[in-house]
Amino acid sequence: MNTIINNLGECIIDSPLVNIFPSKKSFFVSDGQRVIYNCYINNDCDDDNHDINGFEAAGPREKIYFDPAQTCSAIVTCGGLSPGLNNVIRSIVMESYYRYKVKSILGIRFGYSGLNPKNNYNPMQLTPQIVRDIHLDGGTILGSSRGGVEDMELLVDRIEELGINILYAIGGDGTIKGALKLADIIKKRRSKISIIGIPKTIDNDISYIQRTFGFESAVAKAVDAIYSAHIEAEGAQNGIGLVKLMGRHSGFIAANAALAMNDVNYLLVPEVRFDLYGENGLFAHLKERLKRRSHAVICVAEGAGQEHLVKDKPKEYDASGNPVLEDIGNFLKDKINDYFKKEKIKINLKYIDPSYMIRSTPANSNDAIFCTMLGQYAVHAGMAGKTSMIIGLWNNVYTHVPMELVISESKQIDPNSRFWYNIMAATGQPVDMTNKESTVS
Amino acid sequence: MNTIINNLGECIIDSPLVNIFPSKKSFFVSDGQRVIYNCYINNDCDDDNHDINGFEAAGPREKIYFDPAQTCSAIVTCGGLSPGLNNVIRSIVMESYYRYKVKSILGIRFGYSGLNPKNNYNPMQLTPQIVRDIHLDGGTILGSSRGGVEDMELLVDRIEELGINILYAIGGDGTIKGALKLADIIKKRRSKISIIGIPKTIDNDISYIQRTFGFESAVAKAVDAIYSAHIEAEGAQNGIGLVKLMGRHSGFIAANAALAMNDVNYLLVPEVRFDLYGENGLFAHLKERLKRRSHAVICVAEGAGQEHLVKDKPKEYDASGNPVLEDIGNFLKDKINDYFKKEKIKINLKYIDPSYMIRSTPANSNDAIFCTMLGQYAVHAGMAGKTSMIIGLWNNVYTHVPMELVISESKQIDPNSRFWYNIMAATGQPVDMTNKESTVS
Amino acid sequence: MNTIINNLGECIIDSPLVNIFPSKKSFFVSDGQRVIYNCYINNDCDDDNHDINGFEAAGPREKIYFDPAQTCSAIVTCGGLSPGLNNVIRSIVMESYYRYKVKSILGIRFGYSGLNPKNNYNPMQLTPQIVRDIHLDGGTILGSSRGGVEDMELLVDRIEELGINILYAIGGDGTIKGALKLADIIKKRRSKISIIGIPKTIDNDISYIQRTFGFESAVAKAVDAIYSAHIEAEGAQNGIGLVKLMGRHSGFIAANAALAMNDVNYLLVPEVRFDLYGENGLFAHLKERLKRRSHAVICVAEGAGQEHLVKDKPKEYDASGNPVLEDIGNFLKDKINDYFKKEKIKINLKYIDPSYMIRSTPANSNDAIFCTMLGQYAVHAGMAGKTSMIIGLWNNVYTHVPMELVISESKQIDPNSRFWYNIMAATGQPVDMTNKESTVS
Amino acid sequence: MNTIINNLGECIIDSPLVNIFPSKKSFFVSDGQRVIYNCYINNDCDDDNHDINGFEAAGPREKIYFDPAQTCSAIVTCGGLSPGLNNVIRSIVMESYYRYKVKSILGIRFGYSGLNPKNNYNPMQLTPQIVRDIHLDGGTILGSSRGGVEDMELLVDRIEELGINILYAIGGDGTIKGALKLADIIKKRRSKISIIGIPKTIDNDISYIQRTFGFESAVAKAVDAIYSAHIEAEGAQNGIGLVKLMGRHSGFIAANAALAMNDVNYLLVPEVRFDLYGENGLFAHLKERLKRRSHAVICVAEGAGQEHLVKDKPKEYDASGNPVLEDIGNFLKDKINDYFKKEKIKINLKYIDPSYMIRSTPANSNDAIFCTMLGQYAVHAGMAGKTSMIIGLWNNVYTHVPMELVISESKQIDPNSRFWYNIMAATGQPVDMTNKESTVS
Repeated sequence: MNTIINNLGECIIDSPLVNIFPSKKSFFVSDGQRVIYNCYINNDCDDDNHDINGFEAAGPREKIYFDPAQTCSAIVTCGGLSPGLNNVIRSIVMESYYRYKVKSILGIRFGYSGLNPKNNYNPMQLTPQIVRDIHLDGGTILGSSRGGVEDMELLVDRIEELGINILYAIGGDGTIKGALKLADIIKKRRSKISIIGIPKTIDNDISYIQRTFGFESAVAKAVDAIYSAHIEAEGAQNGIGLVKLMGRHSGFIAANAALAMNDVNYLLVPEVRFDLYGENGLFAHLKERLKRRSHAVICVAEGAGQEHLVKDKPKEYDASGNPVLEDIGNFLKDKINDYFKKEKIKINLKYIDPSYMIRSTPANSNDAIFCTMLGQYAVHAGMAGKTSMIIGLWNNVYTHVPMELVISESKQIDPNSRFWYNIMAATGQPVDMTNKESTVS
Repeated sequence: MNTIINNLGECIIDSPLVNIFPSKKSFFVSDGQRVIYNCYINNDCDDDNHDINGFEAAGPREKIYFDPAQTCSAIVTCGGLSPGLNNVIRSIVMESYYRYKVKSILGIRFGYSGLNPKNNYNPMQLTPQIVRDIHLDGGTILGSSRGGVEDMELLVDRIEELGINILYAIGGDGTIKGALKLADIIKKRRSKISIIGIPKTIDNDISYIQRTFGFESAVAKAVDAIYSAHIEAEGAQNGIGLVKLMGRHSGFIAANAALAMNDVNYLLVPEVRFDLYGENGLFAHLKERLKRRSHAVICVAEGAGQEHLVKDKPKEYDASGNPVLEDIGNFLKDKINDYFKKEKIKINLKYIDPSYMIRSTPANSNDAIFCTMLGQYAVHAGMAGKTSMIIGLWNNVYTHVPMELVISESKQIDPNSRFWYNIMAATGQPVDMTNKESTVS
Repeated sequence: MNTIINNLGECIIDSPLVNIFPSKKSFFVSDGQRVIYNCYINNDCDDDNHDINGFEAAGPREKIYFDPAQTCSAIVTCGGLSPGLNNVIRSIVMESYYRYKVKSILGIRFGYSGLNPKNNYNPMQLTPQIVRDIHLDGGTILGSSRGGVEDMELLVDRIEELGINILYAIGGDGTIKGALKLADIIKKRRSKISIIGIPKTIDNDISYIQRTFGFESAVAKAVDAIYSAHIEAEGAQNGIGLVKLMGRHSGFIAANAALAMNDVNYLLVPEVRFDLYGENGLFAHLKERLKRRSHAVICVAEGAGQEHLVKDKPKEYDASGNPVLEDIGNFLKDKINDYFKKEKIKINLKYIDPSYMIRSTPANSNDAIFCTMLGQYAVHAGMAGKTSMIIGLWNNVYTHVPMELVISESKQIDPNSRFWYNIMAATGQPVDMTNKESTVS
Repeated sequence: MNTIINNLGECIIDSPLVNIFPSKKSFFVSDGQRVIYNCYINNDCDDDNHDINGFEAAGPREKIYFDPAQTCSAIVTCGGLSPGLNNVIRSIVMESYYRYKVKSILGIRFGYSGLNPKNNYNPMQLTPQIVRDIHLDGGTILGSSRGGVEDMELLVDRIEELGINILYAIGGDGTIKGALKLADIIKKRRSKISIIGIPKTIDNDISYIQRTFGFESAVAKAVDAIYSAHIEAEGAQNGIGLVKLMGRHSGFIAANAALAMNDVNYLLVPEVRFDLYGENGLFAHLKERLKRRSHAVICVAEGAGQEHLVKDKPKEYDASGNPVLEDIGNFLKDKINDYFKKEKIKINLKYIDPSYMIRSTPANSNDAIFCTMLGQYAVHAGMAGKTSMIIGLWNNVYTHVPMELVISESKQIDPNSRFWYNIMAATGQPVDMTNKESTVS
């Protein structure tokens, strides 16, 4: 396999891109960088030093731990909605029922709260008949609730009482932390109950996992909102379309939607600081753009610019003593309107918050396939008696990732990456929107 | 980074899946299999033995070969339509114009035929203004034609006459073969012209490339056709919905559409042989299913079952002496109708061929992002004076792949893979639809 | 209410439109033409001469004929699929069950054949629970079959045996004819069974009914096919996109799709004769257009140009002695290819037949509302003991129309109407594509 | 034409619907009510008493007032966005240019403000080339602004200065009032300038006009928002989905969306009063439903329940002295949350405001056709020298309606109509949600 690339001759001209990211040499690629062909390594009879850098491959095991005829599985969905929840539920049921012949499958209602004996929720009996068409709808037929805030000992009591052998927990960071607590208690009790996680974060911000389900579907819907913002902005004098998208800690949805549609002029994400005021702040650039082009589209991830919100409202605290955070979307809407009022420039700002319409959309076909796979691999793992782990994807291979590792850090956009460079190229926004003097902002 | 997975205990029970793929031990995964974490290797100061298994990483080079102010780039689109062609064109123009400051960009009309002096096509001058909104539409604003059938010496004459320094050729197998011929002639003439390919195959059947643009969008539309076939099948007594999808050599579109929707009962692809008649043939299974469920959906890739077509019409040849192949979709339609007529079972077969509606759809948001990236990386490669290579994706990293390698073999579904197992699980079709005695079929 | 319109002055200039439709004075409107304001007339205490020109208004009656507690209703769907069938079923069930408190509602399987005792189909028991979400899908949960070909005495036997008081028959021309036969037999038997029709024709070709359900949804999907044909045509040298749409006797779907999208260059419908050959035939115009614009889109309704098919294949007859009609879409595809082969002009023809994908689509929101209304008005009529009638819409008011009237003639496009003029404007096609000398064609 | 309907016998049973609308006898239909067949009357040689109840029919006149070669037309779009604006612009340009051969067509920027000389906006020159594909996008290529707030004398100066003969004003109530002022000034100046209105109100609330463009497209998008609200509500414990839709004075969008989807449990419109508190108020019903079904969907038109907002915030006034109205959507969100907090019931309320995403959507195919027609009929009217009128639709016939008549009153839902009854049937909400004692609320 010859992989050497021809070159017409020596490269001696400075790339014009040097001027765009002058200080970021890491931005460029050298001809020596290689992408390995085979990322699949068999460690069976090898030394174990690969473990440090490798994930266990997911997949069906020839010998399994649980006897299907005796096994009771359960599924719980936690946290906010994400496209594909029903697809994962369906896949777990189908794989368990038809392939592994597990006939007892419970659907826990409304997240972990459905396992709290106080709430008196009866689990649903899940069968192929019941889940047959659920993937056509968004949401979750089980219902959901915020994960990880329950008395975990009580929950394990209930799990044991129900005779559950494998619990498939579909949820995000809080859910996985909760699942880990459950697994710890189970371990202490020496119960033989497997806890398998399927990571769900519409924001795609889980580390060591290449992609989370629902993310692509969310981006596709987010693009619709940006389209609307663009049409509204162009349709008015000094029209400004402002779209708030999901992303508390990372701006992947906003960034990908901006790349897909190319109608965003300013993208604001949690990972990149920006000033509002001052000569290099967002508003000054916005003003200049309106003068030049008479309309603009701003897309902001919900976690962006939190420092402005705190500064603006320093004295309100909630019951727990935490500062009450205002919504960045409405905050920006107000501040932009104020700014241009002072500047005596008439603008037409239209604010769009499509979050619930994005979360509740059915999975697109690519996510549908992905969810089917995740469900199947989860069942393979559960039946093999794995526990305290989640199903991941890495280098396009399905993997087993320890829960501890997954919750240790979250994935963010690297502002020094080529990915972020592509955002700059797609939006045309300044690389830096902060002022030198921090006092200005 | 701890990646060791806990297990509840020893696995001693035989997996029920053993019975499904009894002879395919390779189907199962052992706990020792690992997925490598970092697939990116810096080869600069290393020995060169990694070359054998690694692709050159794509990306911007700090030093480039062509002087932007003197560079003329050209884009050509060849072969059948695929979602995202306009996105790639747009991205090449935007990246060349705004980032590299290349102001002269030509759009070659109607594939390689637009470079044939006999055809008298004038190239379009491409500017950001012209390409601004083209990504919202399917198709290609340049027009296309079948690639690789031209007199290549004449084409190089024309390339030189037009003063083209970099030719971006977007197309499939034939186009890349043609591009390689162009590059060979250029090399012999010692011209300093770079030929960069962006692989286009809606079938996703190019080797050494993880994914081709347009494929996901195609699958999404194919799912609509399967939905229709399912609704039609359920709406009639012994209703049979038959859908033909693209895939001359590989059935990836059909397979992924079947996985995404789960309404297909029989999936027929070029990679897996099937008999029509006999006790284990398709028709016997179909008859049995109609008796049991009174409707069925069949999805066939266009290249599937070619041996049946040849057998059926052995004596027709075209001008070149090749056997004239009948369309498998219409062939199956006729044979199924004949079969059930003989069986005296009244059926209602509805045949759907959505191919042109799939090819012409605009790129979905995920493909839109991918096309933008492909265009940008192509420009990085072209400006750096790379040639005779295409832009690929491998382990989610953009790569440079030699054209020779790409055309050496094509990618197909492995019938012994877990991917194919998932198809079996999703369709419920028999693992094997051939008869022991070959004489029966 | 002042409805007099101001005019700036006397009109003395000949309209340029005179030249477009020179012989069609009826095309123009005079200032004296008026549209009546109130089309709703109360005939209760009036003379009855309005009956001749007026339909009975549909709606709930204060006194009804059937005692809900004793009533058994049944629903049957016949003929080809049309968007909205499930919506109508759902509405009839909901209105009967919740408003009129009719608890016994049967769903007849697979059209009239489900009432034929020979077929041994058991009817479904329909409840709100069962029909709750069926409107989200295309097709019919009851199944369908061609209407009106059964032994009607047997069917009435079965209706009586099942204790059905009201039969809601959803179907087209054949179904209504069948329903009328049922009603006649019932009348002879002096049974007290009401037969209510809900007209279903995706082609919108029923007279005395302003609009049929599913039609708008069908047009919306047809537009997608035309879009694809246009993209394909533009993407190739001398590209021709050819789309066949439904419309055996009338071209309303094709015409409305052409109006909605404006990408069709030649619209062929059953109502307007056209020649293929000769100097004013379709092919000559097509050739001229390819020369001028290098691509073209043709949209043909399935019933158009039947005379060409018959002429072309005069000697094939089916078992009943009827001439076998070839499909106009494939016929045109072949003839166009032949024509340009003889003309030595290389073309790229792409043929799209989206019929089954159109029929099986779910109802759009406007059709969904319409279907809900039709179902409710059908129940009002049935409970009031009306029979041998269908639910219509006229001047936007829901009406009762006698079945005899409905089947007496079908609705067609009037080639002398402004509607057809608008098609000419939208397509730019010649008003007349026939040759003076009939011998040429 | 026999239109007499058969009846099985005398109706003597009280309809159960009597109990639903006990006091509303007008709700029922008698057998004597008739719908007239022909609503088209030729008044040319008739007495003129039909004028009182009839609209002038729209359409091409054989003699026209303006000489096409000398005519300059102009188009202006005012007010908020509505699907189909670009379709109407396109149709006016195409009809003027190709059929009437008017070559000078101006596009006024940003509503009436584009005619104010102070703003220095240059009109666009509109040609078929420019408008060819604009109908594929939402919004208006001309831009828009709130209508009717300009110095009208200055505007007429500018109209005359630009040499405009016909001004097509596309807009709502304010725009038509403005157009009428323009026409009055023009009349006083004895200028020969025609002012033709095309009514645009996404709310469909213009009297004497059966339907306004964009409405159906808006309903279709509104349905998506309701779907999301439903999925969110079902996905949480005591989930409440709250959707605010357009409709300042009338609730047609909300009502039609509720009918189309059937997932709304409480529909609140400006036309029907409701209490929030008290035993028969909204919240009590909501509480009872949550107990019974554990989720609910509320859909509120923006103009509903204004009396609650005023009562709640009586002391804030804007610069003009008008009470500042809070947004009913956010108001309800807060009040519902407060209510259940006091009731100590944990709820999960998700609030969706899709307004801008609805307004900016492209026209669906049915609206696309309608807009094409409106544009053509506007040009017929303008060229014939009509003025001070708008293009309407009545009994499915295109009409000329005097502007005075159109602005005299607005169209609303009649709470005593069967249309409203259908809403009650579709939502299952109480017919009356007010308390007997007004003091409670």
